[in-house]
Amino acid sequence: MTVAHAPAVLDVVAIGNALVDVIAQADEAFLAAEQLDKGSMRLVDARRAEELYSRMAPGLEASGGSAANTLAGMANLGRKCGFIGQVADDQLGEVFAHDIRAVGVNFSTPAMTGGVPTGRCLILVTPDGQRTMNTSLGVANSLYASAIDQALIESAAVLYLEGYLWDLPETRAALATAIKIAHTAGRKVAFTLSDAFCVGRYRDDFKAMLAAGDIDILFCNEGEILALIEHDDFDAAVAQVAPQVPMLVCTRGEHGAIAVTGGVITHVPAEPIAKVVDTTGAGDLFAAGFLAGQADGLSVHASLTMGAIAAAEVISHYGPRPETDLTALIAGRV
Amino acid sequence: MTVAHAPAVLDVVAIGNALVDVIAQADEAFLAAEQLDKGSMRLVDARRAEELYSRMAPGLEASGGSAANTLAGMANLGRKCGFIGQVADDQLGEVFAHDIRAVGVNFSTPAMTGGVPTGRCLILVTPDGQRTMNTSLGVANSLYASAIDQALIESAAVLYLEGYLWDLPETRAALATAIKIAHTAGRKVAFTLSDAFCVGRYRDDFKAMLAAGDIDILFCNEGEILALIEHDDFDAAVAQVAPQVPMLVCTRGEHGAIAVTGGVITHVPAEPIAKVVDTTGAGDLFAAGFLAGQADGLSVHASLTMGAIAAAEVISHYGPRPETDLTALIAGRV
Repeated sequence: MTVAHAPAVLDVVAIGNALVDVIAQADEAFLAAEQLDKGSMRLVDARRAEELYSRMAPGLEASGGSAANTLAGMANLGRKCGFIGQVADDQLGEVFAHDIRAVGVNFSTPAMTGGVPTGRCLILVTPDGQRTMNTSLGVANSLYASAIDQALIESAAVLYLEGYLWDLPETRAALATAIKIAHTAGRKVAFTLSDAFCVGRYRDDFKAMLAAGDIDILFCNEGEILALIEHDDFDAAVAQVAPQVPMLVCTRGEHGAIAVTGGVITHVPAEPIAKVVDTTGAGDLFAAGFLAGQADGLSVHASLTMGAIAAAEVISHYGPRPETDLTALIAGRV
Repeated sequence: MTVAHAPAVLDVVAIGNALVDVIAQADEAFLAAEQLDKGSMRLVDARRAEELYSRMAPGLEASGGSAANTLAGMANLGRKCGFIGQVADDQLGEVFAHDIRAVGVNFSTPAMTGGVPTGRCLILVTPDGQRTMNTSLGVANSLYASAIDQALIESAAVLYLEGYLWDLPETRAALATAIKIAHTAGRKVAFTLSDAFCVGRYRDDFKAMLAAGDIDILFCNEGEILALIEHDDFDAAVAQVAPQVPMLVCTRGEHGAIAVTGGVITHVPAEPIAKVVDTTGAGDLFAAGFLAGQADGLSVHASLTMGAIAAAEVISHYGPRPETDLTALIAGRV
């Protein structure tokens, strides 16, 4: 039986942690002294966040959150998007809501009152451009089923979820509901593995989702796919994961990125840039470019190229969202 | 009679508006639609700030405030400084306090409770790099005599004041007290005219301060000195103002800067830079470099050169404070 579905109004609806980034420079000695794993994200409680902040250099604040960054990139590329995430009724919550709405993303999750603050991610950027993230979730930790806007999810061609959300016990059930809503409405579900340590914590859940056919498009980087199958051979990891998902997209930093669909592997090189300033948002913007390309009906190769260009833009400056017109950067390239 | 004064412990103590900048890109059409004078600062009330913010593009938040930026630059150059300014006990107040302390500036003005927020400056940066500022003073408007830390002022070789403070009626009397404290302790008083429109509002006050000998070092730019004497000839303006102050420092954008002391005019060219990204903080950092050079006992020419280098660094990126080690940039140059 074929079910007729309404045409999608939005390209992507994403559910993610609503965070404001606090970005500061740090050297390797600082990371060592604070026992931080370079390049990873870890959750910290409010007290540890305060302690770390007190030792950090002066910061720049910018709206962040992995899935929210992806939407900001897609909106920059002219795609229509919606976001579901929890902020508090405080100054950083206003900043987050302003910034995502200012790029044209539909965001209407009500701000939470009660004194728990908007989530913050303290990001330390080393001279090599790598970012090390310390997330104090605050009220983002209260993303409950009540926030799952069924009509919004049904209205979008793709539901996009970040693996970071699995750190929120109350949220996991809400996400299962969201996936069911999307699939029932004939929509695709995209998922990012987010972080190798995150994969380590929720490997079984992520594997079960793949096995159950919950995921239509899987985004990851090399470290994350290796963590998923607990292997150290990239080609073997791809060979094992690709058959479990209709579309696998895997970024490899300076080695570019691949996509695998229907058994076919497509590769693009990384975009050359003058200097890597801050890698924050690289994966998020790669996903933005790829999903925008797919929404445009472009080939896998062209979609990967858009991902590579969007990622290159965001790592060439501080901050996790594009600062230039990505459409202009891509013009003539795909 | 010669009065013996204690040696100064700090190089500069500054009193200024404690503000967090919200920096966003805007085009000329936006400025026209919002009836904004490009390159100037204007005060807006909370309602107008909210209205303007709702129409602005996504922002980057960074600690700002003219005099505070100058101190951040001086601290970057290894000088010892203290700041007096009013923040609220809110998230942006924490950001301001963290950032100025993180660069090593002594800042202990207690945060104010009561619900009025920390001051914000909405900065629109046009493609030519010019910044147009809309300041919602919030609690910065409550910088009263009780905040004037006599011991702190007495401990610094220079007291630095920004002309913007004259917009705060309650503050003017406190500043007169601060000037008296500094001079009684044998310290110098530096003053920046801040903004041509600001000069237009308080011209008589500023002229009276010069005439009374309240000011030992006057910082300004070309537009401000012309506004002060209501003239359109730069050389004539300098000829008129210079005799009224022991040291006059006037920046001229791409034409460099001059200092006049003892009837001698010293000129330095502007530092060449690849691209002007955001002129926010240019004058503030020029003052930082100049004052640091003077604190180091350098010549007027060398001090101007340090100012030009510090200003060039800050206009080559978004944000009003240096992001690189200014000492390294200056090494071998003075």
